[in-house]
Amino acid sequence: MPTMEYFSIDSLEETHSSLSNKYKNLQEKHLKLNMSRGIPCKEQLNLSNSLLEALDSHDYISANDIDCRNYGILDGLPEIKALCAELLEVNPQEIIVAGNSSLMLEYDLITKAMLHPLPEKATPWSKLPKIKFLCPSPGYDRHFSICADLGIEMIPIKYHSDGPDMDMVEKLVAEDTSIKGIWCVPKYSNPTGITYSDTVVKRLATMPVKAPDFRIFWDNAYAVHHLSNTPDKLLNILSLCKQANHPNRVFIFASTSKITFPGSGIAMVASSEENIAWLKKLTSVQTIGPDKLNQLRHLRFFKDCAGIEAHMQRHAAILAPKFKLVLNTLQEHFGDTPAISWSNPHGGYFISLNTPPGCAKKVVEKVAAAGVVLTPAGATFPYGLDPEDRNIRIAPTYPPLEELKQAMELLVLSLKLVIIEQELARRKQ
Amino acid sequence: MPTMEYFSIDSLEETHSSLSNKYKNLQEKHLKLNMSRGIPCKEQLNLSNSLLEALDSHDYISANDIDCRNYGILDGLPEIKALCAELLEVNPQEIIVAGNSSLMLEYDLITKAMLHPLPEKATPWSKLPKIKFLCPSPGYDRHFSICADLGIEMIPIKYHSDGPDMDMVEKLVAEDTSIKGIWCVPKYSNPTGITYSDTVVKRLATMPVKAPDFRIFWDNAYAVHHLSNTPDKLLNILSLCKQANHPNRVFIFASTSKITFPGSGIAMVASSEENIAWLKKLTSVQTIGPDKLNQLRHLRFFKDCAGIEAHMQRHAAILAPKFKLVLNTLQEHFGDTPAISWSNPHGGYFISLNTPPGCAKKVVEKVAAAGVVLTPAGATFPYGLDPEDRNIRIAPTYPPLEELKQAMELLVLSLKLVIIEQELARRKQ
Repeated sequence: MPTMEYFSIDSLEETHSSLSNKYKNLQEKHLKLNMSRGIPCKEQLNLSNSLLEALDSHDYISANDIDCRNYGILDGLPEIKALCAELLEVNPQEIIVAGNSSLMLEYDLITKAMLHPLPEKATPWSKLPKIKFLCPSPGYDRHFSICADLGIEMIPIKYHSDGPDMDMVEKLVAEDTSIKGIWCVPKYSNPTGITYSDTVVKRLATMPVKAPDFRIFWDNAYAVHHLSNTPDKLLNILSLCKQANHPNRVFIFASTSKITFPGSGIAMVASSEENIAWLKKLTSVQTIGPDKLNQLRHLRFFKDCAGIEAHMQRHAAILAPKFKLVLNTLQEHFGDTPAISWSNPHGGYFISLNTPPGCAKKVVEKVAAAGVVLTPAGATFPYGLDPEDRNIRIAPTYPPLEELKQAMELLVLSLKLVIIEQELARRKQ
Repeated sequence: MPTMEYFSIDSLEETHSSLSNKYKNLQEKHLKLNMSRGIPCKEQLNLSNSLLEALDSHDYISANDIDCRNYGILDGLPEIKALCAELLEVNPQEIIVAGNSSLMLEYDLITKAMLHPLPEKATPWSKLPKIKFLCPSPGYDRHFSICADLGIEMIPIKYHSDGPDMDMVEKLVAEDTSIKGIWCVPKYSNPTGITYSDTVVKRLATMPVKAPDFRIFWDNAYAVHHLSNTPDKLLNILSLCKQANHPNRVFIFASTSKITFPGSGIAMVASSEENIAWLKKLTSVQTIGPDKLNQLRHLRFFKDCAGIEAHMQRHAAILAPKFKLVLNTLQEHFGDTPAISWSNPHGGYFISLNTPPGCAKKVVEKVAAAGVVLTPAGATFPYGLDPEDRNIRIAPTYPPLEELKQAMELLVLSLKLVIIEQELARRKQ
């Protein structure tokens, strides 16, 4: 898309009219697509169908003769803990495997910190007049919803190409004792797709922090969700925190939601032994134990970490063409438009599109008016406020290729229309 | 066991010596039994083994074409909601089916009330200087642990044969606005085995209450867990609360933990539509949805309420002989001892034994010294304090009959020894 300023008003109006016709034609197709969230497609789900048959009426005993049908084992089957610990590069005594989603583990953990002192014996967060979290943005909207829900003030932090703006992070945590946490999706970040550089991870692990009960919420949601054969590498933050004498600084979260079945997967939280002991003690009041049969089912299905890796390559084979389609479409139409940029992630679930300022909301509206639901513009920022109104999260995983093609066609048209309308309005002022 | 006072010291010592020998003989058998909790036995678990094969790699779609393998459906599959609603005698819009345990739903709900105002828009409980719960005792120790964990003051309430002492309950809730809840296990109560009478349920639903955000936590854990062919009947408290214009007063909890597999079952909470809307809104921040595949699995396994009923009869056939053994043993040895009494429940998981005052702790210790772990004496009371030190919870479900027989022999011997030791100490004062 060439730069607007070289065109006359007449020529702009002509282009607008021609694009509008194309838009109307698409509208008449009555599309009904939901691309608002990072949802696996049917072909991806089919990859795990044998999980449904992984156990049978004679297979319910785990190692150490644990009858997975009965009560107990608060922190997960030893066998599945060993597997998940290997996956997250921690020790089995540094992990709890429980529940069906890392989001719930995150919410529950913060709720516990609201009502109980963390191991540092500081005041429970709900007893303080105000607490704050740092929120690298654009980020995962559900993280921000947890903060909003619990009355935690959110401070947006800009992203660079290698992670959050660490100068700002370091400055803030060094001086403000009410800053208790930072949300991080450190690998194939939602939605920017970036992976934190070694320098960023090291600075997070070593930076001086004013609040003794400050925690990094390290949502490693896409740890093994590669799209290329040269996956990004992420440093082991727990190990770095331990080296820096801040063993309790980080809680690491992950789940199999986008590996096997969302909602019917297994979830895990890893941290220092002291943090894990604290969490287990509080969790023992809440539950007798997780669904061990589902853990055993996953163990039988994966067998080992190599099994998970092979499984993820099958996911990538389904997803790579979808990401390629989106990227090619954007390149074809906006490759020569400096005001428009997008991420080219090596993994994860999203492509992050940055429009010229002030366009994102209008584009999402226009796309929706033709039947395609995108993530609400702004949703990837604290309080739903994108300061420049330019970020759009594209979730290419769910629709079949043919529908994705139509949706991208619509997105491109809508973006062009909004840009021309904006330019026309500017000229006519 | 005849009354002590008719015996000389010599004769008491002789009896003590003879019982001690028997006790030592049992001790030499090196028993290793855990009867501390209400745990289903292997034969009970076997009843649900086909649940492990209820789904297969072609069966994962629920009614309304819901793909249970993917994200969504916050409050449970419509099909399973309909089934659970029928079970609890509520409307489907008055229920959420989620998670694997009612304990967790209870904990989570109270946590939410700590941090958010209930629909009445009163102050969140954690922002108040003090809140209190009424605790009919002896009761379920894990309920009391939740209160202890969250700093909720517990007020013990005596049990009568038809439920909690309603005169005391009514008096307290009418005058103290800091009383926010009451724990109830209304059917085959843990551990007393009683079912609340119609009068008690009606009084709970209609009583004037000072705190507008007061809630009854109605843990209907044993709703269908009958041991006889003439099951106890429990009035529908939600319906009574609605009639009395207190629709929000009650939250009802249940699960299939002791129907199918503990930890791998499904759980549910029912209440007024306003309470459910409040809970769903807050839960939407915590999770995207429950394990729908496990819900579908249960649906395929049960088929309908009649299926659950038939299944519970098979449980009863396994459990009834165990309860009978315990009751017969107690009757044989203490049938003529007015100071010793026990419950004769028509369902549930426990027999509640009341020893003479001051004996329970010593008996549990003596039994443990010979290898049988009972629920710690006092655990069934708030703060672990049995004011008369006389309640022992017997959980007969887990051990095989032969082991249960030995455990009961040991319990009887230990109780007799403690009573004689107490009498000898009294005489020698």
